Amino acid sequence: MYKYQQLYDFSRNIFLKIGCSEAHASAAAEVLVSADLRGVDSHGVARLSGYVRLWEAKRINAQPNIRVVHETPSTAVVDGDGGLGLVVGPIAMQIAIEKAKNVGTGWVSVKNSNHYGIAGKHAMMALEHDMIGISMTNASPLVAPTFSTERLLGTNPIAVAIPAKNQPAFVADFATTTAANGKLEILQRKQQEAPLGWVQDKEGNPTTNANAAKEGGSLLPLGGDREHASHKGYALGAIVDIFSAVLSGANYGPWVPPFVAFLQPPSDPVGEGIGHFFGAMRVDAFRPAEEFKTHMDNWIGRFREAKTIPNQEKVLIPGDIEREMEAERLKNGWGLHEAVIKDLEALGEKWGVRL
Amino acid sequence: MYKYQQLYDFSRNIFLKIGCSEAHASAAAEVLVSADLRGVDSHGVARLSGYVRLWEAKRINAQPNIRVVHETPSTAVVDGDGGLGLVVGPIAMQIAIEKAKNVGTGWVSVKNSNHYGIAGKHAMMALEHDMIGISMTNASPLVAPTFSTERLLGTNPIAVAIPAKNQPAFVADFATTTAANGKLEILQRKQQEAPLGWVQDKEGNPTTNANAAKEGGSLLPLGGDREHASHKGYALGAIVDIFSAVLSGANYGPWVPPFVAFLQPPSDPVGEGIGHFFGAMRVDAFRPAEEFKTHMDNWIGRFREAKTIPNQEKVLIPGDIEREMEAERLKNGWGLHEAVIKDLEALGEKWGVRL
Repeated sequence: MYKYQQLYDFSRNIFLKIGCSEAHASAAAEVLVSADLRGVDSHGVARLSGYVRLWEAKRINAQPNIRVVHETPSTAVVDGDGGLGLVVGPIAMQIAIEKAKNVGTGWVSVKNSNHYGIAGKHAMMALEHDMIGISMTNASPLVAPTFSTERLLGTNPIAVAIPAKNQPAFVADFATTTAANGKLEILQRKQQEAPLGWVQDKEGNPTTNANAAKEGGSLLPLGGDREHASHKGYALGAIVDIFSAVLSGANYGPWVPPFVAFLQPPSDPVGEGIGHFFGAMRVDAFRPAEEFKTHMDNWIGRFREAKTIPNQEKVLIPGDIEREMEAERLKNGWGLHEAVIKDLEALGEKWGVRL
Repeated sequence: MYKYQQLYDFSRNIFLKIGCSEAHASAAAEVLVSADLRGVDSHGVARLSGYVRLWEAKRINAQPNIRVVHETPSTAVVDGDGGLGLVVGPIAMQIAIEKAKNVGTGWVSVKNSNHYGIAGKHAMMALEHDMIGISMTNASPLVAPTFSTERLLGTNPIAVAIPAKNQPAFVADFATTTAANGKLEILQRKQQEAPLGWVQDKEGNPTTNANAAKEGGSLLPLGGDREHASHKGYALGAIVDIFSAVLSGANYGPWVPPFVAFLQPPSDPVGEGIGHFFGAMRVDAFRPAEEFKTHMDNWIGRFREAKTIPNQEKVLIPGDIEREMEAERLKNGWGLHEAVIKDLEALGEKWGVRL
């Protein structure tokens, strides 16, 4: 079992070794390990060596000059200068929050960034300010639009965090595909089949092969097929792509650079790096925060008490599972997959950092 | 075949008869008939008599004092004063646009309104200003959250309109359910079955009975079931509900009043009327509009040319189907369902308005 502080310190020390400042290394480690804490193991320390390999390939800048290149009272475009998305994300979200303090809301589109960890972590920064937080990002193309065999969109997640009073916050955080890639990786490791509607093969046929996307196939947009409204998942993924990258000047669609160092970015980029989009809305820009939060408690309470289907689980509020996981893992620690442990140990050995 | 002008004039005259001002009657008729034009027949003149019956039941105010009750430079809450959503919607969206002119973006949450027609029409108001438009609304509860048998959410649509340069605009407009209620109504009329994943029966079992939601069952959130990520559709519907109603002070969840006059609103309201949420983002609050729109053309062109699955349709851009329908119907007119014609004729007779 591993504890939060141990993995945070290890990650932070690795980020320091590749040249990050103290502040950036702390921010990056906090975002990275928050994914493990919340049970999104695919986005946590399992990816640490991937970030380092991208830095080794000179595709991540460990000492970026992250700056606003255009702004209005409620908007900004941030140039991430090729930095870690784990660092660029919190800085851009903080700018959205500051703008919301001034004019009610703040909206920041980011270019020239990299993978930013879990979407929800950034959105949740708004909560302590009694703001609604929004976070989305584009990502390497893995998803085929409805009717296509081509991978043109990433799993492009959307996160929305909404504060409540006595109830815990509402925190939705989801890929705009039927299944996040992390869920497929779990099936791949267990050599299990995927439900129909998660992936298609390279000819565009429905398949239960959990490895289909690695064999020329694609992940499917939320909905799965046309009859079940995959055009809606495709539209959602497209909106995330456009807000994150066409608004900011990042790469979009099939031009988004891959997260892995062994694949080269497209030779004909249409922008810089990958893109994110952040929003912050001050609750009291609409109605008194106490009033809003009291009604959120009522909303949450009513949905939590909804009548359930016999023999099924209780109705959940978005964020329930991750919050319970976080409490459990903070207290008792958690196990890592054997391959991840080996990977971290090799990384530690290479850089002289103790796990 | 019916022509646009004929149905617009008829609808406008009916709205005048129930006491709407000239300006309000024009706005309402334009929004209403735009749904027919775009092929969303369920939201067009088929609903005209429904609005009148709600007015007869004193649940719609034909002479509302629509006003801003709270604002910041980038936000407002609008009180619709019980008016037609068809009238409140464009006024609130215009306020969002004005705020975007001033500070980059504008965000308006609306309470005390009624059904506002098709979501996309309002979002598209932003396009001529080189802005991105966003429109969403809550609605009478028909949808069960994942694991529940209770109808706690409406079909809560989201629309996002994004301008391009030479390409037509990107206009996504979709219910956050697998299928909009209008699609079920078509199956009901044809006495056909629904695909699994659209509805469940009153015990929460999957069913192909297209009438299930009328028999105590529910529509299902986008995704359909837990294995296909209905929790994501549920989260989207919940976000629409909260932005539209908890932010503004409208009714939310199961407290949203029904659109039909023969059902009474809940006796314990938690707010006023139904709620909407509008957003406008000036493209040049992020980057020069020409640059953005040129990249949107590139985005759209690339997706439109995507390789297709053999024997399937071409890849579509959100809004393609509705735009082609609009061009066709503007030119040649369109047919109405027999029941709708009878309904309109009866309405015309009652109010002395010629169809």
